[in-house]
Amino acid sequence: MHIEHMTAAQASAEIDALERDYTELGAKGLALDLTRGKPAGEQLDLASDLDGMLAGDYRAADGTDVRNYGGLVGLPEARALFGSLLGVPAEETLVGGNASLTLMYNVLDLAVNRGLRGADSAWRNSASMKFLCPVPGYDRHFTLCESLGIDMLPVPMLETGPDMDAVEALVDAHSDLRGIWCVPRFSNPTGCVYNDATVKRIAQLPNRASSDFIVMWDNAYAVHTLNEAAPELASIRTFCLDAGTLDHVFQFGSTSKITFAGAGVGYTASSVSNLAALQAHLGVQSISPDKVNQLRHVRLLPDRDAVIAHMASHRALLQPKFDAVLSGLEQGLGGRGMGTWTHPRGGYFVSFDSRPGLASGIVTLAADIGVKLTPAGATFPYGEDPSDCNIRLAPSYPSLQEVSETVTAFVVCVKLASLRQKLAQGATA
Amino acid sequence: MHIEHMTAAQASAEIDALERDYTELGAKGLALDLTRGKPAGEQLDLASDLDGMLAGDYRAADGTDVRNYGGLVGLPEARALFGSLLGVPAEETLVGGNASLTLMYNVLDLAVNRGLRGADSAWRNSASMKFLCPVPGYDRHFTLCESLGIDMLPVPMLETGPDMDAVEALVDAHSDLRGIWCVPRFSNPTGCVYNDATVKRIAQLPNRASSDFIVMWDNAYAVHTLNEAAPELASIRTFCLDAGTLDHVFQFGSTSKITFAGAGVGYTASSVSNLAALQAHLGVQSISPDKVNQLRHVRLLPDRDAVIAHMASHRALLQPKFDAVLSGLEQGLGGRGMGTWTHPRGGYFVSFDSRPGLASGIVTLAADIGVKLTPAGATFPYGEDPSDCNIRLAPSYPSLQEVSETVTAFVVCVKLASLRQKLAQGATA
Repeated sequence: MHIEHMTAAQASAEIDALERDYTELGAKGLALDLTRGKPAGEQLDLASDLDGMLAGDYRAADGTDVRNYGGLVGLPEARALFGSLLGVPAEETLVGGNASLTLMYNVLDLAVNRGLRGADSAWRNSASMKFLCPVPGYDRHFTLCESLGIDMLPVPMLETGPDMDAVEALVDAHSDLRGIWCVPRFSNPTGCVYNDATVKRIAQLPNRASSDFIVMWDNAYAVHTLNEAAPELASIRTFCLDAGTLDHVFQFGSTSKITFAGAGVGYTASSVSNLAALQAHLGVQSISPDKVNQLRHVRLLPDRDAVIAHMASHRALLQPKFDAVLSGLEQGLGGRGMGTWTHPRGGYFVSFDSRPGLASGIVTLAADIGVKLTPAGATFPYGEDPSDCNIRLAPSYPSLQEVSETVTAFVVCVKLASLRQKLAQGATA
Repeated sequence: MHIEHMTAAQASAEIDALERDYTELGAKGLALDLTRGKPAGEQLDLASDLDGMLAGDYRAADGTDVRNYGGLVGLPEARALFGSLLGVPAEETLVGGNASLTLMYNVLDLAVNRGLRGADSAWRNSASMKFLCPVPGYDRHFTLCESLGIDMLPVPMLETGPDMDAVEALVDAHSDLRGIWCVPRFSNPTGCVYNDATVKRIAQLPNRASSDFIVMWDNAYAVHTLNEAAPELASIRTFCLDAGTLDHVFQFGSTSKITFAGAGVGYTASSVSNLAALQAHLGVQSISPDKVNQLRHVRLLPDRDAVIAHMASHRALLQPKFDAVLSGLEQGLGGRGMGTWTHPRGGYFVSFDSRPGLASGIVTLAADIGVKLTPAGATFPYGEDPSDCNIRLAPSYPSLQEVSETVTAFVVCVKLASLRQKLAQGATA
């Protein structure tokens, strides 16, 4: 029965039953964890040929010995491969170390402290700097901003991507806005894919913003489909070429969820002049990235088609886990009015919204019976979800059995919190 | 004949002969390069088992699957191994990505912009910040300082390490001194090993300096001996424990010149509380280092003894090249008063000092006949060698034959520049 139609007596009776379920779950000594988007062991096995992939041949296609120093922008064949995943030419792609997050930090560190276009353009020369953060979003993006002293303005995420009317209004209102975070395909955590109109408006955004506005286009799940019919993402580069804004967009990606998490290859794409500035900044800190690992990756996955085929094997492992989450939620909460959730066709997350004010309580209830969830608020800047309703579910790492158990427990916690709130609100009404 | 004892006519006659030699060398179309401390291919071959080293077993000793996220401070066994190379316990060691330079940048970025001991301690809060740079020294250290806005004060390097009387006087005179660069064993480029008294005085330095003074102890050549009788380096950690200054020293090292250059493992060591601050800073930018490559290294070189044995193979390849440089210099310039040079017992460089005012000219003369040398001045902050005399020779990368050819050509350039200067000075005297 929908929670809005229940009487206090009905709610109270269901609470009694749920408390028994909850106590039983607590007695099981569960140790379940749905906190982070980590690949499972079986997914990592898909790339286990990586070590040994070179079979003693450490020469790149152009004869470069990848065991020696040099080549700050990455191996040519790695630039071509990862450029193809972002839909950009090799010369607009820089391949780095093991983490795209490190490249994001470097782009922002460069923009804030040294200036993308010379020292005079450093953001820290201005009294304030702000970034637009579609919410719910990715906590590590927010941490990067916070660490560099960039203030964050939340903006709502729709099924089509960020609410572009709101985005444009904020850009018009705040001359100190320096950029926007985007996870354009299978957004973290809602799973939405930005539609073409949104991509086009984002590509045009720098033309109405401050001259040093940048789009941080973290295409982390570019090829991470859960569904063969998953929507494609329009090319922001093509729209940028039309709008003359290529200097204002940095794209990112990594193989952390293609090959090995934290032992793969991160990459970025932007205009040739932006890459030159980034290269100079990276050149202060290192002589070159790990080209041996870049070559291993190109040997394992020589082209975009090979990557797409590889991702089908990931999908086969991930899809059942997402199905378990969605069917568990539907079965336990369908038609109850106790929450809404996304139905992603790719990426690593299901985004759940409880009734307002309940997310932290649900996370605590779950933790108390051994079910770890991403902390409530983590998907918002400064950890502050104004409605306290969003919870990110990450089902990739646990086994299918554990995912099912976790969802069962999660449903009990959601129901309990929702009905207790209803009773409490009735009492104070 | 010593240059000081030559008549103008003798000098002139020798110049004529040298100019013929120089023209002949130019006609050879040489393409020789002694610019950077890069390992040669045969050295890289010594570690070629690295790729494939894991034979499918991606589990660390504690069962960690190294293919997944986590472990910002590095694998326990990697911390133990690389700690042993620096002479510190595993818990005071952090193992990172492919470059110690990146760790140095992060330590300085943290100290300058965020503060090693909280935001109030950030160096950029003060009007000025300076670093002591023993000269000649390593150009990339100077670039790090310049990039972060740290002013540099040169201080002379002696055979025992930095001139500690000068260092202490500068520390006493400049309250805005924030640290000192040190390459304590087989210094870049002089090859000197800091003696025990110097190490002790450096460990005590933070007690007379500003409270946030740090020692950047880049022990890049800790195990890179060219000579079995090479002097050992005293433990700065032991002296720091006596002086209570462990919080003021960061040690660094990498396997770039042990296994693969730019595809090895970098590490740092400091007090547990400093590592915690560094870990927090690194955690903003990445989820974890490449633990797969760390595990490969531990499997290839399980302990300090294995590393020492491995370095003996490097020594066998490097020693003949250094011998060729030293015998070429001795044969061509011995007793001529046209320059002095170091006789390193380890490391990657021979440091050559010409007569004052000649280094840039010699480098240009050499370049014009196809012999690339490290740019004159590179071993000084801001590229400014006040005496214009220091040239760094890096014989590791070329073949033995090329090293000999290069030294022959170098000697001709040195003689030519020295004798031309003598004539010019005679003419103006």
